[in-house]
Amino acid sequence: MSMDWLQQAIAAIDTQCLAQAQQRQTQLTKPPGSLGRLEELAIRLAGMQGTQAIALDKPHVVVFAADHGIAAEGVSAFPQAVTTEMIKNFAHGGAAISVMARQLGASMEVVDVGSAVPPGPLPGVVDQRIAAGTANFVKQAAMEREQLAQALQCGRDAVARGREQGMQLFIGGDMGIANTSAATAIACALLHRPASELAGPGTGLDANGVSHKARLIQSAIEQHRDAMRDPLEVLRHVGGLEIAALCGAYLACAQQGIPFMVDGFIAGAAALVAVQLNAEVRQWMFLSHRSAEPGHEQILAGLGIEPLLDLGMRLGEGSGAAVAVPLLRMAAAIHTQMATFAEAGVSEKSEV
Amino acid sequence: MSMDWLQQAIAAIDTQCLAQAQQRQTQLTKPPGSLGRLEELAIRLAGMQGTQAIALDKPHVVVFAADHGIAAEGVSAFPQAVTTEMIKNFAHGGAAISVMARQLGASMEVVDVGSAVPPGPLPGVVDQRIAAGTANFVKQAAMEREQLAQALQCGRDAVARGREQGMQLFIGGDMGIANTSAATAIACALLHRPASELAGPGTGLDANGVSHKARLIQSAIEQHRDAMRDPLEVLRHVGGLEIAALCGAYLACAQQGIPFMVDGFIAGAAALVAVQLNAEVRQWMFLSHRSAEPGHEQILAGLGIEPLLDLGMRLGEGSGAAVAVPLLRMAAAIHTQMATFAEAGVSEKSEV
Repeated sequence: MSMDWLQQAIAAIDTQCLAQAQQRQTQLTKPPGSLGRLEELAIRLAGMQGTQAIALDKPHVVVFAADHGIAAEGVSAFPQAVTTEMIKNFAHGGAAISVMARQLGASMEVVDVGSAVPPGPLPGVVDQRIAAGTANFVKQAAMEREQLAQALQCGRDAVARGREQGMQLFIGGDMGIANTSAATAIACALLHRPASELAGPGTGLDANGVSHKARLIQSAIEQHRDAMRDPLEVLRHVGGLEIAALCGAYLACAQQGIPFMVDGFIAGAAALVAVQLNAEVRQWMFLSHRSAEPGHEQILAGLGIEPLLDLGMRLGEGSGAAVAVPLLRMAAAIHTQMATFAEAGVSEKSEV
Repeated sequence: MSMDWLQQAIAAIDTQCLAQAQQRQTQLTKPPGSLGRLEELAIRLAGMQGTQAIALDKPHVVVFAADHGIAAEGVSAFPQAVTTEMIKNFAHGGAAISVMARQLGASMEVVDVGSAVPPGPLPGVVDQRIAAGTANFVKQAAMEREQLAQALQCGRDAVARGREQGMQLFIGGDMGIANTSAATAIACALLHRPASELAGPGTGLDANGVSHKARLIQSAIEQHRDAMRDPLEVLRHVGGLEIAALCGAYLACAQQGIPFMVDGFIAGAAALVAVQLNAEVRQWMFLSHRSAEPGHEQILAGLGIEPLLDLGMRLGEGSGAAVAVPLLRMAAAIHTQMATFAEAGVSEKSEV
């Protein structure tokens, strides 16, 4: 399967709409700048959507699920069976992201890109299993090149399905026991940091567990260092199938002009690969929240975008991105519905 | 008018429901603690609402508007006429908080507790003008004792009207040109800080304007220091009618067991008075956001509650509090709708 599509150009932001939105924000009945980041969100959305009539009625959530060979090394506080159990939980509407998507009126699908134990047919779950999880990257590359290409394409395909439903915002989520190990390894390799600096508790490791995890990741990075000569080879050697799918989805969104909201640590690692492949991907990216996973700080610095929320969340599934959607909606409502000084007959700021 | 009601006891939190909610959060299908502050919000709401079936369908917004004598000293970037102009803008639905309340499906009213120029009858505006603004507190006490009592009662009355509509969350907003000067003076007096440390640009003063404002506030505090022997006398000497109404509303909410969401700098100063009158008020308080107004940091420290959002907002009107409502709703949805490990057949955390 070809990966040539990764090289396609990123869609252009409508700079005229962006400038008009900046101008409009100064005319609304409030001190200039007083709505802070809500103003920035509205202005960016106007540039992305190419209109002042910005709207976010149709967010679309896709949770990519896959297992990780490194789970065999005891790097997670939860057993590997949980990946498949959670796919069922998503399908039955009982997981956090299921509840959040309903609360937002967002459409949602789950894509199984590589569970170790297939959950069987489930409503709302797309079966695109590429493998029974990745290989254990402490011992060998996590993926074959063909598997990586398939996983990236799975992300792109999910974006295409979302567009058919009129998606106005893409939210990618992740599920995969041990995937903070993969995300940490990616971030360490791309940002040239030691694993001891970025490894964290994930779903709940104690201090010994974190040290063990950091040592394994560091050893894997050293083993694969020469082979990891570009971001895609980093993703292939120490990444995960769901992380690759997220990366492919982000690139496809940016190429097709779809705004996307990045979740926390795992999604952040996927976004970092996408940004290192093409820095212009950032034009279509919103960053939802600062994760409680300590290494996220370095990923955020690498992405160079300040997240919107800091609520101590560290769940994944796209949950942090979902929590940020009402901010975008509030920003859009303000931009489209507030009166201007002229319309309301309100005096403007004195020249002091 | 009596102020004896201020002494009434604060309603008790349902500690059994609180403990049950804590327990339930550990059973939901997510790593314990992984939803961060959303878990805390759900647990607190369960204790406040006395049920696990927590809900926030009916938030109620009340914007208290009043003018300030100190506006004559040139401490605001906007002319005093804007207070009345904005009351009209609220009534016609064009202000930020009007848009936000609609977006939330929240009920909203405006209470004119002391505009300098009455706006005339308007839909959704309750005329309770106590005075044509406060006196200039650089020259004399801002309010008479009777005016203070009336303003506090206005807040309590607004809470009573909200309860008649089934209000589940009270959001108080402020409108009043020059009211950051009053809020700064209150905070300086209550927290024993110099005005130079807390005074900020408000709606948009430049550095010279901020210095001028700080000097005026410092001089007023020194002039009234001996008379400001308790929080109510601070409020009376350097406060505002809308700030007193907010303070009365917060106390009434806490006495009657209504959760309330505090907005930014002005509302924070009102909350600080309420908390210094009765520290247990904090049990019913949510703090929405960290304002861009620099002195807010000290007010937050005085309240001892970490705000939920930090979006660089500094508008007032209750706008920051409105932006935080979807977080409470998300927390409630998660608490009531997520599956437990047992319900979903998901394996729990290993004992590692």
